[in-house]
Amino acid sequence: MELGLVGLGKMGGNMRQRIRNGGHTVIGLDHNQDISDATDTADMVGKLTAEGQPRVVWVMVPVQAIDPVVNELAELLSPGDIVIDGGNSRWTDDTRRSALLAEKGIKFVDCGVSGGVWGLENGYALMVGGEAETIATLMPIFTALKPEGDFGFVHAGKVGAGHFTKMVHNGIEYAIMQAYAEGFELLEAADIVDSVPEAFESWREGTVIRSWLLDLMVNALKDDTHLDKIRGYAEDSGEGRWTVEAAIDHAVPVPAIAASLFARFASRQEDSPAMKAIAAMRNQFGGHAVKGAEDPSYATPPQH
Amino acid sequence: MELGLVGLGKMGGNMRQRIRNGGHTVIGLDHNQDISDATDTADMVGKLTAEGQPRVVWVMVPVQAIDPVVNELAELLSPGDIVIDGGNSRWTDDTRRSALLAEKGIKFVDCGVSGGVWGLENGYALMVGGEAETIATLMPIFTALKPEGDFGFVHAGKVGAGHFTKMVHNGIEYAIMQAYAEGFELLEAADIVDSVPEAFESWREGTVIRSWLLDLMVNALKDDTHLDKIRGYAEDSGEGRWTVEAAIDHAVPVPAIAASLFARFASRQEDSPAMKAIAAMRNQFGGHAVKGAEDPSYATPPQH
Amino acid sequence: MELGLVGLGKMGGNMRQRIRNGGHTVIGLDHNQDISDATDTADMVGKLTAEGQPRVVWVMVPVQAIDPVVNELAELLSPGDIVIDGGNSRWTDDTRRSALLAEKGIKFVDCGVSGGVWGLENGYALMVGGEAETIATLMPIFTALKPEGDFGFVHAGKVGAGHFTKMVHNGIEYAIMQAYAEGFELLEAADIVDSVPEAFESWREGTVIRSWLLDLMVNALKDDTHLDKIRGYAEDSGEGRWTVEAAIDHAVPVPAIAASLFARFASRQEDSPAMKAIAAMRNQFGGHAVKGAEDPSYATPPQH
Amino acid sequence: MELGLVGLGKMGGNMRQRIRNGGHTVIGLDHNQDISDATDTADMVGKLTAEGQPRVVWVMVPVQAIDPVVNELAELLSPGDIVIDGGNSRWTDDTRRSALLAEKGIKFVDCGVSGGVWGLENGYALMVGGEAETIATLMPIFTALKPEGDFGFVHAGKVGAGHFTKMVHNGIEYAIMQAYAEGFELLEAADIVDSVPEAFESWREGTVIRSWLLDLMVNALKDDTHLDKIRGYAEDSGEGRWTVEAAIDHAVPVPAIAASLFARFASRQEDSPAMKAIAAMRNQFGGHAVKGAEDPSYATPPQH
Repeated sequence: MELGLVGLGKMGGNMRQRIRNGGHTVIGLDHNQDISDATDTADMVGKLTAEGQPRVVWVMVPVQAIDPVVNELAELLSPGDIVIDGGNSRWTDDTRRSALLAEKGIKFVDCGVSGGVWGLENGYALMVGGEAETIATLMPIFTALKPEGDFGFVHAGKVGAGHFTKMVHNGIEYAIMQAYAEGFELLEAADIVDSVPEAFESWREGTVIRSWLLDLMVNALKDDTHLDKIRGYAEDSGEGRWTVEAAIDHAVPVPAIAASLFARFASRQEDSPAMKAIAAMRNQFGGHAVKGAEDPSYATPPQH
Repeated sequence: MELGLVGLGKMGGNMRQRIRNGGHTVIGLDHNQDISDATDTADMVGKLTAEGQPRVVWVMVPVQAIDPVVNELAELLSPGDIVIDGGNSRWTDDTRRSALLAEKGIKFVDCGVSGGVWGLENGYALMVGGEAETIATLMPIFTALKPEGDFGFVHAGKVGAGHFTKMVHNGIEYAIMQAYAEGFELLEAADIVDSVPEAFESWREGTVIRSWLLDLMVNALKDDTHLDKIRGYAEDSGEGRWTVEAAIDHAVPVPAIAASLFARFASRQEDSPAMKAIAAMRNQFGGHAVKGAEDPSYATPPQH
Repeated sequence: MELGLVGLGKMGGNMRQRIRNGGHTVIGLDHNQDISDATDTADMVGKLTAEGQPRVVWVMVPVQAIDPVVNELAELLSPGDIVIDGGNSRWTDDTRRSALLAEKGIKFVDCGVSGGVWGLENGYALMVGGEAETIATLMPIFTALKPEGDFGFVHAGKVGAGHFTKMVHNGIEYAIMQAYAEGFELLEAADIVDSVPEAFESWREGTVIRSWLLDLMVNALKDDTHLDKIRGYAEDSGEGRWTVEAAIDHAVPVPAIAASLFARFASRQEDSPAMKAIAAMRNQFGGHAVKGAEDPSYATPPQH
Repeated sequence: MELGLVGLGKMGGNMRQRIRNGGHTVIGLDHNQDISDATDTADMVGKLTAEGQPRVVWVMVPVQAIDPVVNELAELLSPGDIVIDGGNSRWTDDTRRSALLAEKGIKFVDCGVSGGVWGLENGYALMVGGEAETIATLMPIFTALKPEGDFGFVHAGKVGAGHFTKMVHNGIEYAIMQAYAEGFELLEAADIVDSVPEAFESWREGTVIRSWLLDLMVNALKDDTHLDKIRGYAEDSGEGRWTVEAAIDHAVPVPAIAASLFARFASRQEDSPAMKAIAAMRNQFGGHAVKGAEDPSYATPPQH
C-alpha cells in the first residue's frame, strides 16, 4: 500500500527503508531535501494517489513538531484518511489530537515504536492505539515494520493506549538499565572479579538475567572495558517521567523506576543542591570541628 | 570423568542428570536413599575410583548444611582432591572453607549456579572462583553443565569471586524483576490497555526490554491473566541482602536493587510497623479531627 | 477588622476562634447551621459591613468545594474585595482562580495553612502568595492566626507561591515522618532496646533529631507502646504527590520524599500486584521445585 | 565524683568542661600534651585516687583507636572498675570489648553521645547500654553531661543497646536531613518562591516540620543564601551504613534511610560508574544516531 511519512531522521529514515523492503510505496518528507521525496506536506499528500484507498500519513517527528504537522494534515487530508503518530508523544496528548482530526472525519492512530537503530534490521516493536477497523487497514504497514516473529506488535486499546504501553515499556527499560548499571558499579568497586566484561558476557546464556540490554552492555564493554571513555550522563526522554506521574495518579508504588529516573536527573547535575544542604547542616552541628579533624590528637570527629 | 555430588534436590538431581548426559560418572549422595547412589559420604568418596586423578566432590546443599559436609570431606579426602561448593554461599564464607581444606592439601572451588528448573534442558550458567589449574581440571564437568553456546561460564577470579559474581547477578535479577513488576502493576491499575498479557507478550520481540524474565512473565500471565491466583509474597534468598551490604561496604549507591529488596521485605509483613508509626503521628496532629471527617459540613480535613 | 470565613470544620472552626481572640469580627459560614453565622454565602457577604474597607472572605473548604465557592464569590463581591484560599489547593489552580476573580477586579491570595488541631492554641503557620499591597491589608488577620513568636508567616511570592511553599513543606513532612517510622520499625524488630518509647522520649533533648514530630511520636507511644491499636494505613492528601510531580518537572531527584509517598500507597493495598508479579516470575523459574522444599533431603532451594 | 577521660578532641574536650562544670574531677588524657592532664594512660589511671570508689574511665576516641585504649585499660584497671566507650562504635563491637574487660572483672558501659559542638552549652544526649548497677554508679557523670530538662538520657538496655540506639538515631538523622535537602533543592529549582531562606525560616514555628535541624538549616542559609559557598559533598560516619545493614538483618524496609545513605555515597563520586553504564547502553541502541541529533531536519531522537 501507499504511505506518506513525515520525518526522515534516524528513526523515520530507516522506517521508510523497512516499509519499502516490505513492498510498499513511501512518500517521505523531510526538511532535508536531499533525502525528501516531496517538497512540502501538500506535495507529499498530493503524491498519495492510490485509488479507492484512504490516504495514510505517518508522523515521525520530535515531540515539539507534532502539533504543527497534525494541524497541517487536518487541513490537507479528507474524511476517511488516517494519521498515525509514531513519535514519543505523551499519551494524554493523543486524545486531543484525535479529537481535532475527528472534526474533519480523519482517523487517528497512536503508535509507540521501539527498536532504535537496530529496527531496520530486526524490525520495530509497535504498540498501537485506535479503532480496530482503522488498524486493520494499516496492518500491511505494521507487518512490514514489525519483527518477523510472532511478537512485537500489539493493538493495545483505544486512542492513547499505544503510547501508554510504550511509556510503561520505557519506564521498565529505565529500571532494567539501572539494575545492570548498579551491578556494574559494584563489580568495578569491589575489585574481586578479574574481568567485569567477562562476567557480564558469561551471563548471556543460562542465567536469569539474560536479555537484549545485557547483550548491548557486553558490546559496550568490549569497546571500553572500564567505560573510561564515556561520561556518566544520561538524558531522559519524557516517558520515564510520565511513567512515574501516571503511577502517582494511580497510587502505584514504583520505587525502582523512580530511583532510575532520579539517578538520571542527578547524573546531569554538576553539583547537587540537596547535598549542599546536607553539607551545610552537618557543618552547623559540627561547627569549627572541621579544623579539629586535622589535629593529630585523639580528637574525635564531632558526634551527632 | 568422575564426580561425587552431595545433594540431589531439585538442583542437584537435575545436575547429576545433565553431567551424566555429558558422558561422566556421577556418584550422587542424598538423605533420600531412593535416589542416592551411596549410603553416606564415606561410601560416596570410596566409590570415586578413577586412577591417577584427583577425587572431585561437588557440594550442592542448602546453606546451613554446607559446613558439616565440608568438614566431613576434609576428613575423607586426600591432598590434591577438589571440593566444589555450588550452593548459595555468601562469598565471604568461601575463604574460610578454602583455608580449612587447604590445611589438608585439598583444593576448593566456589561456583555460583544459575538456571533453576530450566537448567537441565538449557544448561546452567556457572560463575567460578579458584585457582586456574584446579579449574582446568574441572572443565569437563563445567562443560557438561553449562549451556551449549559461547556463554554461561566464567572463571571470575580467585576463591570467592564465583559466589561474588553470582551474588551480583542475583542483585541485578531482583531489580529487573521489580522493573517488570512495577510496569505490570501500573498497566493493571491504569486500565487503559485492553489486555496486559498481550502487551507483555508483544514486548518479546523488537523492544529494548526483551529478556528471559519477560518470557517467564508472559508464561505466568497465560495461566493467570490478572495474577489472581497468586499472593504478592516473595522470599529473598540471601544474595539480594548481601549485594546491598557489599554495595554499602564499597560506598556504591544501589537504589534500585535496595528498593527491590525492601519491596520483598514489605511483601511478607501482615502490617507495616513503620506505617503504624506514620498513622500514629498523623493522628496526633489531626487530633479528634477524625470525627470531623464524618461531619456533613464544609469541614476540611485537618491540614498540616 | 472584618472577615467572612467559609467552612467551619476542624480547621475553619478553630481559626474563627483564634481570629476572634485577636479582636476581629468573623462571619462564619457552614452548612451546619448550628455553628454558622450566616444562612448562605450572600447572607455572609451582606453581613460584612465595615465602611471604607474591602470585604475579605477566607475560603477554608475541601479541595473539591473550592471552585463552587470561588464562583459564587465572583458574583457576590465587588472590585477591590479580597478572596483568600486557605485550603489544600494545588498551587497550579491558584493562577486560574486568581484570573477568574481578577476579571471582576477582585483580589486573590493563596494561603497554605499548617498546624492541625494544635493551631488554635499554638497558632497556625501561614505561607502566603499574592500582591504585597493585598497582603498588607490582610496582615491583621494573619497576625491573629500565626504563632506569637518571630516565625510562622511568610509572604512567599506571587499568587501560587503560598500553596507551593506549603506543598514542599508537606513533601518534607512525609519524609521526616518516614524517617522516624523506619527507625521505630527497626528498634521494634531488633529487640535490643528494652523500651522503644523510652528511647524515643530520650531523643527529645540534646539530640540532632529533636523535633515537634518526635514529640508527637512520643505522645503516640505513650498511649500504645507497640502501636498495636493502630493499623499501618496512611492516606496522602495531595501535596506529597504534587511535590514529586513538581520535582519531576524540574528534574530534581527526591528519593526520600518519593519513597515516603510510595510507602503510603503500599500501606493501602491489601495485596501488592507488583509483588504478585515477582512471585509469579519466581515460580516460573523455580518450577515444581516448591514441592522439593518440603523434602527432608539435602534438597537445595532452586537457584537462579 | 572522679573520672578519667581519654580523648580531648572537639567532643572530649567540651565534655571534660561540662563534667567539671557539674562539680566533678576529670583527669583528661590526650596526645596533645598542651591540653592533657596526664602523660599517658598509666599516669591518668594513677591519678584516679578517690577512696572506696571504682575507678571510671571514659573513652572518647576515634573508632580505630578504641581497641588499643581498651586493651591498655584492661591491663591497668582493677576488678570493679568501669570503662565507658562513648565513641562512634558499631554496637556489635561492644559485646566483644565487654567480654574482654569482664575477664579482668572490669565493667563495661557503651554510650552513644549526640549533641555536636552545641553539647557543651545545651548538654549531650546520652544513650547507654550496660548493667543497671554500673549505670547507677555513673549517674552523677551522666547527669552532668545530659541536658537539664527531663529528656536526653536513656538506659536503653544491656551492653550494646546504647550504641544501637545511637545508630538508629543517626539513621533517622540522615533521612530527616535528606528531607529538608530535597525540599531545598526543589524550592531553588522551581524559582516560584521569592526567598527560599525566608520560607525555611517561617517554618520554625507553627508547622509540622519544625525541628532543631530546621533551625540549623535556617542558620546555614543566613550565611549563604543559595549555598554557593559549599560543595554538595557529604561524608557518612558509619552509623548510617550500620542502620541499613541492621535493617537488612531484620528484614525491615528502610527506603528513606537507604536513599539518604546512597545520596551521600553519590555526592562523593566525581563521576558515576553506574551512569556511565546507562550512557553506554543508551549509546548502543541509539547507535550513530547521536550524530543525527545535530541534523537540522525533522530527525527524531532514537526511540527505544
